[in-house]
Amino acid sequence: MNTTGSLSVIGLGPGDPATLTGQARAALQQARVVIGYSGYFAWVQELVQEKECIAFPLQQEMARARLAVDRARQGDAVCVISSGDAGIYGMASLVLEVAAQSAPHTLLPEVVVVPGVSAITACAALLGAPLGHDFAVISLSDLLTPWEVIEKRLLAAAAADFVTVLLNPKSARRQWQYGRAQAILAPQRAPETPVGVVRNAYRPQQSVQLTTVSAMLEAQVDMLTTVIVGNSQTRGWQSRMVTPRGYAVAHTR
Amino acid sequence: MNTTGSLSVIGLGPGDPATLTGQARAALQQARVVIGYSGYFAWVQELVQEKECIAFPLQQEMARARLAVDRARQGDAVCVISSGDAGIYGMASLVLEVAAQSAPHTLLPEVVVVPGVSAITACAALLGAPLGHDFAVISLSDLLTPWEVIEKRLLAAAAADFVTVLLNPKSARRQWQYGRAQAILAPQRAPETPVGVVRNAYRPQQSVQLTTVSAMLEAQVDMLTTVIVGNSQTRGWQSRMVTPRGYAVAHTR
Repeated sequence: MNTTGSLSVIGLGPGDPATLTGQARAALQQARVVIGYSGYFAWVQELVQEKECIAFPLQQEMARARLAVDRARQGDAVCVISSGDAGIYGMASLVLEVAAQSAPHTLLPEVVVVPGVSAITACAALLGAPLGHDFAVISLSDLLTPWEVIEKRLLAAAAADFVTVLLNPKSARRQWQYGRAQAILAPQRAPETPVGVVRNAYRPQQSVQLTTVSAMLEAQVDMLTTVIVGNSQTRGWQSRMVTPRGYAVAHTR
Repeated sequence: MNTTGSLSVIGLGPGDPATLTGQARAALQQARVVIGYSGYFAWVQELVQEKECIAFPLQQEMARARLAVDRARQGDAVCVISSGDAGIYGMASLVLEVAAQSAPHTLLPEVVVVPGVSAITACAALLGAPLGHDFAVISLSDLLTPWEVIEKRLLAAAAADFVTVLLNPKSARRQWQYGRAQAILAPQRAPETPVGVVRNAYRPQQSVQLTTVSAMLEAQVDMLTTVIVGNSQTRGWQSRMVTPRGYAVAHTR
């Protein structure tokens, strides 16, 4: 028995349809069934008009993944859409986990993950070039991760001079984690170390703000905000932050 | 005096023209002068035919950045092309640094950074979803960074259970660093922890290999290779590696 279905998980980029890649566009075009958070369909309206679109509310990611695997197993050409890159805290891991769990029982099409422009690189681009050197990415959401694990990572990133990307800094329910992160990072950075705060990158209500480690708690942050904390080498210039690609005599050779 | 020039730094994605975004394509189309490593021009041949293309050999990144700023200051519409994402160890930081240095003396156009699909997300997509949770990115090149800084970061990433992306693992001149990185990571990971080794992602000679922390030194790696070392939660499934988005009861709610 051969399966005739297909299953791709694609990253749409941060929001503006212009951040979509040709690869992601092709994957969408080849699909007959498109599954994702309802808010994302507006971004790709023209590409999905003739397709079966299954829009979910926020969360319910597990239900999206299960439905995608089921429909692909039934022979449908399925595409799961994610914002940013599908692999970075996106739908790709969930779909692969569901596929792996059902794998012994059924023939499944291969899960193809199509990369996209992540929220991280999008926010970095708007800030200049904060990620020109080694960096760490830490989600401050402790819904699925024990806070002790998150705190250990913040301490490690602070001590080892990583440029540090903070995702999901605050939500309606989670208010104190961002302050705690600042309290961990600040002692290991000069007070004037540049910090970038980007909300809604490449979306209609985009805001880009440059601040410092000592003042970063004054910035308004929420679930749609990405915060990038510079390292010892990061410099601010006008409204931009730049981390050079090397230390010391890096740029004189 | 107003400058009439423009200056964008764009990421082309990992190589296949299908990984280009619409935004990057538009930035290229608006340029009159395109500057970059000679190897990249083949990827965008159709888009640059009518333009002045200034191709550099490998390295000479500083010369590329200086020329770009000079030409933009002279009123040209300039686009600097980078592979992957321009901001991650790419040309964006160099161009911004050169612009900042010359800023007091001259009116410069704003440097616009256009994000792309990074080598990191591209390699992750080919491996499945290794970056489904917090991760650290470390270049093993000690040409511009003291090895002690790199080693400190490896130790921190290993101890804090980050999924760890190793860039530039080896070159003709740098042979021992990859082994040293493995020696630091291995004691903090189970021997069977999945490790992905991707070479030439989305390029003609692409290779994707799944191995383990204990066997990762047997893989052939070089400057074109990205190595992704899983964390305590990462699992292998068939030829893929997946890091779930949470710990513990993450996927039952």
